[in-house]
Amino acid sequence: MSSVLEKINELGLDLPPAPKPVAAYIPAIRTGNLIFTSGILPMKDGKVMYTKEIGGFLNSVEQGYEAAKLCALNALSVINDITGLDNIEKIIKVTGYVNSSPSFNEQPKVINGASDLLVNIFGENGKHVRSAVGVNELPLMASVELELIVQVKS
Amino acid sequence: MSSVLEKINELGLDLPPAPKPVAAYIPAIRTGNLIFTSGILPMKDGKVMYTKEIGGFLNSVEQGYEAAKLCALNALSVINDITGLDNIEKIIKVTGYVNSSPSFNEQPKVINGASDLLVNIFGENGKHVRSAVGVNELPLMASVELELIVQVKS
Amino acid sequence: MSSVLEKINELGLDLPPAPKPVAAYIPAIRTGNLIFTSGILPMKDGKVMYTKEIGGFLNSVEQGYEAAKLCALNALSVINDITGLDNIEKIIKVTGYVNSSPSFNEQPKVINGASDLLVNIFGENGKHVRSAVGVNELPLMASVELELIVQVKS
Repeated sequence: MSSVLEKINELGLDLPPAPKPVAAYIPAIRTGNLIFTSGILPMKDGKVMYTKEIGGFLNSVEQGYEAAKLCALNALSVINDITGLDNIEKIIKVTGYVNSSPSFNEQPKVINGASDLLVNIFGENGKHVRSAVGVNELPLMASVELELIVQVKS
Repeated sequence: MSSVLEKINELGLDLPPAPKPVAAYIPAIRTGNLIFTSGILPMKDGKVMYTKEIGGFLNSVEQGYEAAKLCALNALSVINDITGLDNIEKIIKVTGYVNSSPSFNEQPKVINGASDLLVNIFGENGKHVRSAVGVNELPLMASVELELIVQVKS
Repeated sequence: MSSVLEKINELGLDLPPAPKPVAAYIPAIRTGNLIFTSGILPMKDGKVMYTKEIGGFLNSVEQGYEAAKLCALNALSVINDITGLDNIEKIIKVTGYVNSSPSFNEQPKVINGASDLLVNIFGENGKHVRSAVGVNELPLMASVELELIVQVKS
């Protein structure tokens, strides 16, 4: 069994099936030794699990954190469909867009849901650069949208 | 004649002259075998053709689709100024920012205007990863801003 | 002394100490001959110097310009912690998110604060592609968040 998959299971998590793109594009692509993912939503079983803005009365930072974590798992899943996760050399970059209510500015705490997971799984090689940005609307009313760039070994 | 230009013409379209940057930067740059474009607006003859937010009473999804398509054509034009379009090996990534009215969450249908065009022109090599994000304001009140990353052959 | 640092000093500026990440990620990472930075805030001495939206009654375009300039200096500082600035071959890309009040659409003039600085420092090699995007909220209420991609010599 893949040692990355084992690690994911040790964390009490499962790699979900890769979410289908919601429009005319593909979930992940390789160029050189980098893999770029599309913007990934917090989907499970074909449904967006976390919707509407974070902050205000609707969703807490904790729900945002879980949404970002689910996005990251889905992003690993779409990468796994291109190359086994054990072929990941290091995580390069996370870009996280947070559907934000007015005056909400804890986007970093939300996207930590993705960053913490990646470091828990990949250790030192999981440390990445990151942008966390607030936006007013996201596709399918998702609370978070997340992109990943990873470097592969071969 | 370039076969990509022929294909664009077959689709009933013309490659517009590359839009001039609206500030202190350049339209496209090459690093290794990748070309990154700047954020490209839906300009024609020096004017932004699609302004204000998509959704609500102002602009329909269809207008957003046309705006994204025009952005993509302009993006190909700025790439064409660096290297002939026939030197494009594959389209890697589209990032599309959609000026979105409150509660509008069909950004994917808007950015399909770019994605469909790229797949129509480049076929299998036109399939790319993509992020579609809603934002509250864009430069010059544009309805859409779009970036492209492409991989070139040589 | 580094000739890039000299140039920065000639412009009457100092390279600030690299700002600490505000969450679980690293400030800059190298992949191949590219360095990606995280989203960098306009921080000085551990504090965000420019907060709240640009436009409206709160902050002028000029304050936004200064915020973007400070972000760019900080971005150079985090790159300097990975590789000396003289090892920068060229600036590839700036992505600038501008915390924007309703109807503010001069994001390009704001992000010029970063672009002008980079061209003043690096000359022809400082010319880059760029996206300037308006958003409704940013981490820690920052007025601007900015990412850099640079290409290094070795």
